[in-house]
Amino acid sequence: MSPSPDPVALTQALVRCASVTPRDAGALGVLEEALSAAGFACERVERGGVGNLFARWGERGAVRTFGFNGHVDVVPPGDAADWSRPPFSGEIAEGALWGRGAVDMKSGVAAFAAAAIRFVTETPPGGGAVILAITGDEEGDAVDGTRALLDWMDREGERMDVCLVGEPTCPETLGEMMKIGRRGSLNAFLTVTGVQGHSAYPDRARNPVHALVRLADRLAAHRLDEGTAHFDPSTLAVVTVDTGNPATNVIPERARATVNIRFNDLHSGASLTGWLEAEAAAVGAEFGVHVDVSVKVSGEAFLTPPGALSDLVAGAVEAETGLRPVLSTTGGTSDARFVKDHCPVVEFGLVGRGMHAVDERVAVEDVVRLTAIYGRVLERYFAG
Amino acid sequence: MSPSPDPVALTQALVRCASVTPRDAGALGVLEEALSAAGFACERVERGGVGNLFARWGERGAVRTFGFNGHVDVVPPGDAADWSRPPFSGEIAEGALWGRGAVDMKSGVAAFAAAAIRFVTETPPGGGAVILAITGDEEGDAVDGTRALLDWMDREGERMDVCLVGEPTCPETLGEMMKIGRRGSLNAFLTVTGVQGHSAYPDRARNPVHALVRLADRLAAHRLDEGTAHFDPSTLAVVTVDTGNPATNVIPERARATVNIRFNDLHSGASLTGWLEAEAAAVGAEFGVHVDVSVKVSGEAFLTPPGALSDLVAGAVEAETGLRPVLSTTGGTSDARFVKDHCPVVEFGLVGRGMHAVDERVAVEDVVRLTAIYGRVLERYFAG
Ligand SMILES: [Zn+2]
Ligand SMILES: [Zn+2]
Repeated sequence: MSPSPDPVALTQALVRCASVTPRDAGALGVLEEALSAAGFACERVERGGVGNLFARWGERGAVRTFGFNGHVDVVPPGDAADWSRPPFSGEIAEGALWGRGAVDMKSGVAAFAAAAIRFVTETPPGGGAVILAITGDEEGDAVDGTRALLDWMDREGERMDVCLVGEPTCPETLGEMMKIGRRGSLNAFLTVTGVQGHSAYPDRARNPVHALVRLADRLAAHRLDEGTAHFDPSTLAVVTVDTGNPATNVIPERARATVNIRFNDLHSGASLTGWLEAEAAAVGAEFGVHVDVSVKVSGEAFLTPPGALSDLVAGAVEAETGLRPVLSTTGGTSDARFVKDHCPVVEFGLVGRGMHAVDERVAVEDVVRLTAIYGRVLERYFAG
Repeated sequence: MSPSPDPVALTQALVRCASVTPRDAGALGVLEEALSAAGFACERVERGGVGNLFARWGERGAVRTFGFNGHVDVVPPGDAADWSRPPFSGEIAEGALWGRGAVDMKSGVAAFAAAAIRFVTETPPGGGAVILAITGDEEGDAVDGTRALLDWMDREGERMDVCLVGEPTCPETLGEMMKIGRRGSLNAFLTVTGVQGHSAYPDRARNPVHALVRLADRLAAHRLDEGTAHFDPSTLAVVTVDTGNPATNVIPERARATVNIRFNDLHSGASLTGWLEAEAAAVGAEFGVHVDVSVKVSGEAFLTPPGALSDLVAGAVEAETGLRPVLSTTGGTSDARFVKDHCPVVEFGLVGRGMHAVDERVAVEDVVRLTAIYGRVLERYFAG
């Protein structure tokens, strides 16, 4: 049997694959090779041009099955010239491993893969099974990623009793926070259609840009709520406004914006859609333009109430780090929003600082400690 | 001596040259041929890949020199399929001559060329001179057009005592309006640089879009003035806002907007730049982002106060049309903004409706009448 892989080297190999959603760029192959060598049965689950990897050690339908979930796709690096080191170099320097995906979440995937391989190799759980459900579509639409894996597992009779998602969950220090739920998320696409004209005669035109910046400013300035028992306040970000008008002497006909809302259990996709439509209609009337609002709900807010699974993971984290993790629902959406319809799910992973930013990098030491935590989780689960 | 050219046939010949800026497409050659045949000394003044035509009848440095200015370049026709007749056909139908440039301003150039040829042929002014300064770069950057002609004239000792620009000036009916000035124009390019981040954690990023929509809304909502004796109120149009962020879960680092301001004699490029910089700094401080403001002044506001030249032209217009033209400063910029630094300048020309639009066309009758008006202007100028 091959030796357990080094989680740092495995992270490095993954970072060197430029797997910007939906490209896999070889990342799943790196994992499949390591897992297959350790006796995992691997299946590629492809849907909509996205590759996903299902891996199981032990029997299908085992008495106890522990699942890990994570993603190997990454957000675009932006202008590579803004980075101190090339974004897909995976260089190790200053105690860190550098590159897009180093934090979110190739090191998380490498850590649970390495932990699972070590666990099944060194202390194989009799009658138990370990499943790794790894997707290449989390940062994008996430339609053909974990959802595709879960659909495929349903069809094949594959099942997890509990699941741990390996997303970054700690704000500053490894061990301080885990997630037991997530805010919901939606994107609203706003399109303002006015009347084109010459910029010297604005009275003869209806400038859609003026209406759109008013609307965007109003939405950005609005405070949605003050938070709830388990949830932070909801947030709203106007992530892009675009017109694409190259002519300074022309008032354009159309302008567009996209708004991302992260919402807690005081809201739903439907309630926020209603609010956005009302604001858009008010500004449209004020400026005499048409504002189209198209909303796509990525996920509703959800909560896995504190209990056996959160206790198990929190105990493993505390044993390794000395920190009892806070049970939180902060942050973005994750694929836990899909998993929660199938089995209890919690999330624990790295310090999230620097994810999606220039010069993303992970402390090498944290990758090693995260692997140890995931190992303890497996030990405790199958011992329990 | 060759007979005076028909201004309608001359317009037709010019429209058939697809002289989209900066291409000449033979248009200047058509004019040079007609003018040379009538005894005009012609010079091609080329700069920056743009062709311009200088033509003088009479002696350099004559006691009285009357100048005409105009352009033969045109804006692009857009999709030819949208036109009822091919955009460079110059077809005559339904009492009109059709094609891109028929209004702005090949007919104006043809009219003053035909009028000048007729005038110097039939009633040559002893000791006087007539100059035609015709450019191929008015619709573009206008850097190598009339400015190049005027620079060249300065170097060569060529001088106009007064100048009439033949741009379209009438809103509805030939004769109702002339221009004695123009608002200034500037473009301001705003770039907001914030801190990139994940849209789920807006507190860790600094969203440049939020700052930019606030700034753009403030600028758009600000009323610059209420107008002055000779000028309409200044106007401001945000013509484009662009971010180009394709990822809804990323708060971008940078967002841009372009603002076009048409300003009257209460403002200058410098005063408006100061205002824009102050507004930008205030919003930048409010949002903790950097706002870069880059201003390009296309032309300052200017006025040729009502007097001898405007009286002369207005009288010629009234004699021909029965309408006393209003002395206006409305509309976009024109090359008069360059000429005014050299001699008194006013503008009179066709009905401007349909310029820059699909199915641009000019009433054939108006071309004939405009030629007669320009003839009367020359007669009165040299008689006076
Ligand atoms: Zn992630
Ligand atoms: Zn023009």
